[in-house]
Amino acid sequence: MPVSTKPPTGTRDFLPEAMAHRREVIRVIEEVYQRYGFEPLETPAIENLSTLLGKYGEEGDQLIFRLLHRGDKLGRLLTREGGEPLAEKDLGDLGLRYDLTVPLARVVAEYQAQLPRFFRRYQIQPVWRADRPGRGRFREFYQCDVDIVGSASMAVEVELLSAVCEVFDRLGFENVRVRINHRELLKALVLSAGISLVRESEALVALDKLDKLGAEGVLAELVERGFGSDSTEALKPFLDGEIRSGGAEVLERLATRLGEDVHASKGIGDLRQILELSAGTPAAGRLVVDPVLARGLSYYTGPIFEVTVADLSGSLAGGGRYDELVGMFLGKTLPACGIALGLERILVVMSDRGMFASSSNSPEALVTCFGEEMLSDGLSLASELRAQGMKVETYPEPAKLGKQLKYASDRSIPMALILGPAEIERGVVLCKELATGVQHQLPRPGLAAAIRSLGRVP
Amino acid sequence: MPVSTKPPTGTRDFLPEAMAHRREVIRVIEEVYQRYGFEPLETPAIENLSTLLGKYGEEGDQLIFRLLHRGDKLGRLLTREGGEPLAEKDLGDLGLRYDLTVPLARVVAEYQAQLPRFFRRYQIQPVWRADRPGRGRFREFYQCDVDIVGSASMAVEVELLSAVCEVFDRLGFENVRVRINHRELLKALVLSAGISLVRESEALVALDKLDKLGAEGVLAELVERGFGSDSTEALKPFLDGEIRSGGAEVLERLATRLGEDVHASKGIGDLRQILELSAGTPAAGRLVVDPVLARGLSYYTGPIFEVTVADLSGSLAGGGRYDELVGMFLGKTLPACGIALGLERILVVMSDRGMFASSSNSPEALVTCFGEEMLSDGLSLASELRAQGMKVETYPEPAKLGKQLKYASDRSIPMALILGPAEIERGVVLCKELATGVQHQLPRPGLAAAIRSLGRVP
Repeated sequence: MPVSTKPPTGTRDFLPEAMAHRREVIRVIEEVYQRYGFEPLETPAIENLSTLLGKYGEEGDQLIFRLLHRGDKLGRLLTREGGEPLAEKDLGDLGLRYDLTVPLARVVAEYQAQLPRFFRRYQIQPVWRADRPGRGRFREFYQCDVDIVGSASMAVEVELLSAVCEVFDRLGFENVRVRINHRELLKALVLSAGISLVRESEALVALDKLDKLGAEGVLAELVERGFGSDSTEALKPFLDGEIRSGGAEVLERLATRLGEDVHASKGIGDLRQILELSAGTPAAGRLVVDPVLARGLSYYTGPIFEVTVADLSGSLAGGGRYDELVGMFLGKTLPACGIALGLERILVVMSDRGMFASSSNSPEALVTCFGEEMLSDGLSLASELRAQGMKVETYPEPAKLGKQLKYASDRSIPMALILGPAEIERGVVLCKELATGVQHQLPRPGLAAAIRSLGRVP
Repeated sequence: MPVSTKPPTGTRDFLPEAMAHRREVIRVIEEVYQRYGFEPLETPAIENLSTLLGKYGEEGDQLIFRLLHRGDKLGRLLTREGGEPLAEKDLGDLGLRYDLTVPLARVVAEYQAQLPRFFRRYQIQPVWRADRPGRGRFREFYQCDVDIVGSASMAVEVELLSAVCEVFDRLGFENVRVRINHRELLKALVLSAGISLVRESEALVALDKLDKLGAEGVLAELVERGFGSDSTEALKPFLDGEIRSGGAEVLERLATRLGEDVHASKGIGDLRQILELSAGTPAAGRLVVDPVLARGLSYYTGPIFEVTVADLSGSLAGGGRYDELVGMFLGKTLPACGIALGLERILVVMSDRGMFASSSNSPEALVTCFGEEMLSDGLSLASELRAQGMKVETYPEPAKLGKQLKYASDRSIPMALILGPAEIERGVVLCKELATGVQHQLPRPGLAAAIRSLGRVP
C-alpha cells in the first residue's frame, strides 16, 4: 500500500510561492515592529503539560496535542498489571504550544531578572490545536503577537495601535480602522441597563453579535435569554448607531448617558487618553469608539481593540489590556497589553485581492547550458552576476535551448543568458527577454547593471 | 506547588539577544541561497507516522516524538476490555518531524507536477528528537538544508559548494575549506585493500575516525576488527597524508594507485569534474580531496563533502549526493544532492568567538517621558523619527530622568532623547549620548539624520 504523501489533516506544506507571500507579510510586520523597539522572542514548540493545562478552559485543554511517553517508561505503563486503568494523564507530560501568551507568561516568570522593565516583544510562531479542521481552520497555524509587559500607562496602548496601523498601511490595506472599547465601559453599560454583573458575560455574548445580527437581532437574542424589556430598552440607544461611530464626541455622549458610574469614568478616561496620546501617531484618526465591541475573551481588563479594513467583514487583528494574565506564573498582577494579528487570514485576504507582487522569489536570470564543455563557463558567469548582487539560477546540464527557455518561462524567470564559444570570444553574453523574445548582446563587464537597466527583471 | 517555568528538558527559549544572533545567521544564509536561485520550503511540524517510521533505522524510530490520540478515540482505547494489551502503535498515528529530508521526499512526491524539473529548495525549520539531552544536543533544534533535486550533473554539486563557501565567508569565518570524497572511491579503496564489500561499512567506520584517532589509531582499530595485515598495509598510504591534501594532483595519485577499477574511475571522474567546474566560483581553491572522508550516512551514492574552518576540529556543514533517497515515496531513483549546515553549532562557535555585532536588535534611541503632560509630545516625536526610518522606543510613563537613562543604558540603547516644554518652544530635542553623557541640542526637522551623523547609533 503506497503511503499517502499529503501533509496530515489540518496541516499544510508551503511551497516556494506560498512561502514568498508569507515571508513578505512577516518581513513587513517585523520591520515595523522593530522600528517601534519590539524585539523577537521564540519559545519551544514543546511545553510541559503542567504549563499548558488549565489555562484555556476545559475545551482548550481538550485541544492540546499531547506527546506520548517513550521507551521503557511507556513500556512499563502498557504492561503493568492490575491497579487503576490507564488514563490520558499517565501517558505523557509534554504538549504542543497552544498559543503564544502562556509561553510569554512563562518566559516573563523565568527570566524576570534579565528582561527589561518594559518588555516589548513580538513572537511569530506556529501553534497547534487538535481542532476539527475546516475552511481556514488549521491544526498547525501561525500566530503573530506583539505585547508590552510592565506598564499600566495608556502610552502602551497607543504604541501598539500605532504599530499595527502602520503594518496594515504598509501591507497595502485601505481604510484601516481600529474599533476600541473598554471592559469597564462594558460593565457600566450592562449595569446601566439594570443587568447584574453576574449576567454580564451573557449579555455581552449577545451584544458581540451586533455585526452579524444587527440591532434587532441582538435585542431579540437578549429577550430570548430572558433579559427584561427595561434592560433591552436601556441598551437600544447603544446599538442603533447614534452613539457608535466616532472618536472623542462618542465618549462625551457616553459620559452624559452613563453619568458618574465609577466603571464608566475609568473606561471613558482611559479611552480619552488613548485618543489624545495618539494624535501625532499613525493611529491618529483611525480610532473609532464602539461601546458594544465586546470580544470573546474574558481575560481583558482594560481597553480592547479590533482592526478592520475596507470592504471586509470581521477583523484582521485584535487585542487589549490583560493585566491579570502574564503574571500567572509569578502569582501577581503584571500590567500587559497586546495585539494579535490574524496572520493566516491576512494572507488569505491579500491573496484573494491580488495584493502580492507575483513570483517575488524567482531568480532574475537563468544561465543556460550551451553544452557540456561550456558548463564551467556558465557557472563562472553565474558567480560573476551573483557577486554583482543578482539572483541567478543555472541550468545544470546540457539540453536543447528551447527546453531551457521553457524551463525559465515556467519558473517565471524573466531573462535567459546564453554563453557559447562565440560569445566568450567576443566578451559578451546574449540576454533573451522571455516575455518578448527580444535579444540583447551585452558586454560581460558590468553585466548585472546592464541587464537591470533593460527594465525586465523585477 | 509552583509550576516550573523552565522550558522542557532539551528545549530552549530564545530571548531577544539570542534571537538577534539566530536571525543574523539565518539572514546571511537566506540571502546567499536566494542569490543562487534556491527557494524556501516549509513543511508542517506534524507528520503522519506512516511517513516517518522506517526511514531512520530502528534507533531513529525510537527517537520520534509521537502524538497521543485524543478524545473519544483515546477514551475507547483506554477503556477497552480484554483482547491484546495496548501497544505504542495503537496510541497515535502522528509524530513530530525528525529531519527535513523525509519531508522533502514527501513534498517531491506529492507536488511533482507543480515543482520545477530542477527543484532548488532550502528549508530552515526545527526538528524534534527524543534523544537524551546533553551539551549542545537538544530535543528541539533547527536544521538548515539546501538541496537540488532532479539532475545528476556535477554542476549541482558545484552550485551547492559555491553557495555554502559563500555563506561561511560572509558569516566571517576564515580559511573555509571543503573536504570532498566520493562513495565510489571509498568502495575502490576498500576493494584495493582486499576487503570485500560486505565488510565495507565496517572498514569505513574505522577510517572515519582518522581525525580523532590518527593513522596509528585507525590501523589499530582495523586490526581489532579483524582485518588482516594485508589490508591494513594497503590502506596505510591513504592515511598518512601522502595522498590526502590537495586538489587535482591527489586525484592523479589516486588514479595511479587504484588503476582501472570501475568504482575508482567513476569517483575520480566526478571529483575531477567538480574541481574543474568550480574554477570560476567561490568554491575555487577551497576543495580538498580526502580519500578517507567517509561520513556516517549510508545513503550517499556519489560525492560527499564536509566544510571546515580555521582552528576548529570537526565540521560545520556536510552533505553529498543521495540519488536513492528523495524518490522514496515515488518508488524510483531521483537524482539529488544536498548540504546541511550545522546551524546550532555555527551559532555556538560564532558566539564563543565573538563574531556577532553586539545588541544588534536594540533600538537606536529612547524617547524619555518628561512628565504625564508631555507623554503625547513624546509619542509624536517617536512617530516622526520612525517615519524617518529610525528604531525608537518610548519610555511609557513618568519617572525620574536618571531612572529612564539607566533603563536606556541597560537596554544598550545608545541615545536618550529629552523633550520638555522648553525644547518644544525652541523646536529642538535634547539628545544625550549614554556612553559619554555628552548632550546635543538638535533641531527637530531632520532629527534622525542629525542623530545618526553623531556616529553614536549603530
